[in-house]
Amino acid sequence: MRNIIVQKYGGSSVTNTERIQNIAGRIIKYKRRGYRMVVVVSALGDTTDELIKLSRSITKVPSEREHDMLVSTGEQVSVALLAMAIHKLGEEAISFTGAQVGIRTDSAYTKARIIDVNADKIEKELAAGKVVIVAGFQGVTTNHDITTLGRGGSDTSAVALAKALNAKECEIYTDVDGIYTADPRIVRSARKLDRISYEEMLELASLGAQVMHPRSIEMASKFKIPLHVRSSFNNKKGTVISGEVKMMEKVLVSSVTVNKEEAKVTICDCPDKPGIAARIFKKIAEENINIDMIIQNISRTKARNTDVSFTVQKDELGKTIKTAKEISRSIGAKGVTFDSNIAKVSVIGIGMRAHAGVAAKMFSALAGKKINIEMISTSEIKISCVIAKKNAEKAVKALHKAFKLGRKK
Amino acid sequence: MRNIIVQKYGGSSVTNTERIQNIAGRIIKYKRRGYRMVVVVSALGDTTDELIKLSRSITKVPSEREHDMLVSTGEQVSVALLAMAIHKLGEEAISFTGAQVGIRTDSAYTKARIIDVNADKIEKELAAGKVVIVAGFQGVTTNHDITTLGRGGSDTSAVALAKALNAKECEIYTDVDGIYTADPRIVRSARKLDRISYEEMLELASLGAQVMHPRSIEMASKFKIPLHVRSSFNNKKGTVISGEVKMMEKVLVSSVTVNKEEAKVTICDCPDKPGIAARIFKKIAEENINIDMIIQNISRTKARNTDVSFTVQKDELGKTIKTAKEISRSIGAKGVTFDSNIAKVSVIGIGMRAHAGVAAKMFSALAGKKINIEMISTSEIKISCVIAKKNAEKAVKALHKAFKLGRKK
Repeated sequence: MRNIIVQKYGGSSVTNTERIQNIAGRIIKYKRRGYRMVVVVSALGDTTDELIKLSRSITKVPSEREHDMLVSTGEQVSVALLAMAIHKLGEEAISFTGAQVGIRTDSAYTKARIIDVNADKIEKELAAGKVVIVAGFQGVTTNHDITTLGRGGSDTSAVALAKALNAKECEIYTDVDGIYTADPRIVRSARKLDRISYEEMLELASLGAQVMHPRSIEMASKFKIPLHVRSSFNNKKGTVISGEVKMMEKVLVSSVTVNKEEAKVTICDCPDKPGIAARIFKKIAEENINIDMIIQNISRTKARNTDVSFTVQKDELGKTIKTAKEISRSIGAKGVTFDSNIAKVSVIGIGMRAHAGVAAKMFSALAGKKINIEMISTSEIKISCVIAKKNAEKAVKALHKAFKLGRKK
Repeated sequence: MRNIIVQKYGGSSVTNTERIQNIAGRIIKYKRRGYRMVVVVSALGDTTDELIKLSRSITKVPSEREHDMLVSTGEQVSVALLAMAIHKLGEEAISFTGAQVGIRTDSAYTKARIIDVNADKIEKELAAGKVVIVAGFQGVTTNHDITTLGRGGSDTSAVALAKALNAKECEIYTDVDGIYTADPRIVRSARKLDRISYEEMLELASLGAQVMHPRSIEMASKFKIPLHVRSSFNNKKGTVISGEVKMMEKVLVSSVTVNKEEAKVTICDCPDKPGIAARIFKKIAEENINIDMIIQNISRTKARNTDVSFTVQKDELGKTIKTAKEISRSIGAKGVTFDSNIAKVSVIGIGMRAHAGVAAKMFSALAGKKINIEMISTSEIKISCVIAKKNAEKAVKALHKAFKLGRKK
C-alpha cells in the first residue's frame, strides 16, 4: 500500500480564510508524519449559491455549459487560497483545477460523470514533495469544456483521485463527527458508528443523510476504497465506510433516518387495465421527474379501479401535479390529490438480509405509538415507511429504541 | 478585410448583472448587422480587488502562481454571465477561459506576456454563428498553468485576439467617451480627440492616463490594429487610435496630462567619479524599483560633487528611501532627501517631432504662471516637467490654453 492519503474538505470546512488556515495546519501534520497528501476542496461556504444567485438575476434557465463555467470558479478560489495557506506555514503546495489535473468527464453538464483521471501530473508534484490540492466538484470534457459533477460532487472527485493514485485512505472531512445511528438532534442517545458498510451508507445517503454523495459511495464500493468520514473541527476518529465485515453481521439494523423532503401524489380511480402504470410512469419520466416510492391500491370507491400513489421531491411537486393531471385526463382517472405533510422513516442494516422479522418489529414499534403507515417500500437492507409528518420525530425515537441503537448506559 | 469585430468591456462596463445585460444588447445589435463578434470581458466591478483581499487575509506575499489561479476566476465569472445574458436575448454565445481558447503566455505569473493565440477554436464557433466570449487578463503556459497579464491586461487580450483573427476593428469599451486633450475634471474646455496615434497614446498611457494598458497599445501599433476607445454607456463615437495620419501633422501637441503618483528622491553630494551613477542605478534595479525620470546636477554645496535625483511611484517610496540610504553610505554621499508633493505635467504630440519650439512654449507657459520647474525629461513626442503638486491644476490649464487644445468657441 502506498503512503498517499486523499483528504476532502467540504464547504463547511472552508467557510472562511481562518478555517482554511486551520485545515492547512492539519494537512501539514499529516505530511510531516511522512504521508504524501492530495487534498480535494469544495467552494468556500455559500459561494456556489451566491454564484447561482448571480446567474438567476440574468436568466431562470441558464445554459448548463455556462452554469458549469460559472460555478466551477468557486472551487478554483478555494484551492488557490489553501495552497497559499500551506505556503505560509512553510510547506510546498500546488493547486490544480479539475481540468489541469485531467479529471475527464462526459459532457452531461451540471451532473457529469468521471470517465478517468490522469494521475501523472499529481504523481510528479507529489514526488517533488508538494501537497497537491485539487478543485473538487469539477472536471473537463475531451473537448476542454468545464463540467461539474452535481451537488456533493467533491466527494466523487476525492474517491476518483484515491482510486487513480491507489491511495492508502480517503478521508472525508465535514462538520459532524461521523455517521450516527440516528440524527442526534432528534434522538439524544444516538451513537456514532465506528464502521458502516458501503451498502448501508448508500441507503443512508439516498434517504437524505446529507453527509455524503451517493455516487461517491458507489464508486468507493466498486473499487474497495475505505472512506473515513470525520470532522474537520476536532481530531476524533469518525466512521469508516468499507466492505461488509464479520462484525456487522450481528447487528440487525445500524441506523434510523427520516426524510421530510418528499410529497405524495395520488392519481385516483385509474381504470385497472394492463399498461396503465406503464403509461403513467413513462410520461413522468419524460418530464424528468424523479419518483421515489410507488404503490398501487384497489380503489375504495369503485371496484376494478385503482389508486396509484408515488412520492417525489417537494421542489418538484408543482411540476408533478401538473403532469399527473394531464395523465389523469388522458387515462380517464378521476383526478389528482397530493399531500406534502409526510415523512419517510427508514431503518437500514446489512443484518436484515439474514434475519427475518425486522419489518414486523418496525411496524409494531410504529403501531405501539399509534402511528399510521401510509406507504411501505423495502430493499434488501432497508425498510421505509411513509407516515404523517407530525409523527416523524416520535417514530424515529421509537425505532431507535426498538432496535437498541442507543449508547450503552 | 474580414467582418470580425473584437470588443473589450472593462470592469466599469460590467459592474453588475444589469450592466451585463445592457452589453449583451449592444453585442447583439452588432451581430444582427452581420458582424462576427468576439468579446473580451474583465472581472465584475471590484471582484479582482476582493479576491486579492481574501488572499491578503492569508498571506502578505502569496505565491504568484496561486495568485493568478485565484484572480483569474473573476473573468471566468464574467464570461459565463455574459453568455447567459446573450442566450436570454435569443442569440447563441459561448464563453471560454484564456486557457481554453489557447492564449499561450510565458510563465511570468502576474505579468505574463502573450506568446501566441490559437484562433482555431474561436473560428469554429464563429462559423457556427455564435458570439465568442473570452476571459480577458488571462492566459496559460505550455505547462497548462494559468497566468494573468497584469493590470489592464484585458486590453492586451483583446488586441492579441484582434491580431490572431485578423479582425476589422478592435473596440475598447470604458466609462469615458474617449481620449481627451486633458482631464475634463481639471480643464473644462478639454476636447475629445477623434484620432490619436499609437505613439501619442503610448506616452499618454505611460504618463498615467488610466484608459488603456501600455502593452496593448504597443501590440496594436506593432500589428497596425486600429483601436476604438469609447463608452459602453452611450453610442457616441470615441477616439480611434491608429498609425500616424496626415491630419495629425498639423497639430503640435494633442494633449496635456498630469501624474501625481510619483515622488522625488535625491542622493545628495555624491562624489563625482565615473561609475557612480551606474552603481546607484544597478543597486536600485536589483531591488526591482522602477525609476521614471533621472537628473544629475552639480551640487550646490561642494564643487566636484553632484546631486542625483530620480522619481519613483509613491507606493515604492519607503523601499526606495531605504535602498537610497544604503547606496548613500556605500558611495560616501551625504544623505538622502525626498519629496512626495510633486506632480509631473506633460505635453504629448507627434507634431513636435517636426517642429522646434514646443519645449520653449511649454516652459514659458509655466513661467507665465510663476511655476518653478524642478526636473525635465523629454522623448521624441513628449515633454514632461516635475513641478510642485500644489501647482498641478494651474499648470495643466495653462498648457492646455497655450497649445490651443480647447473646444472651438
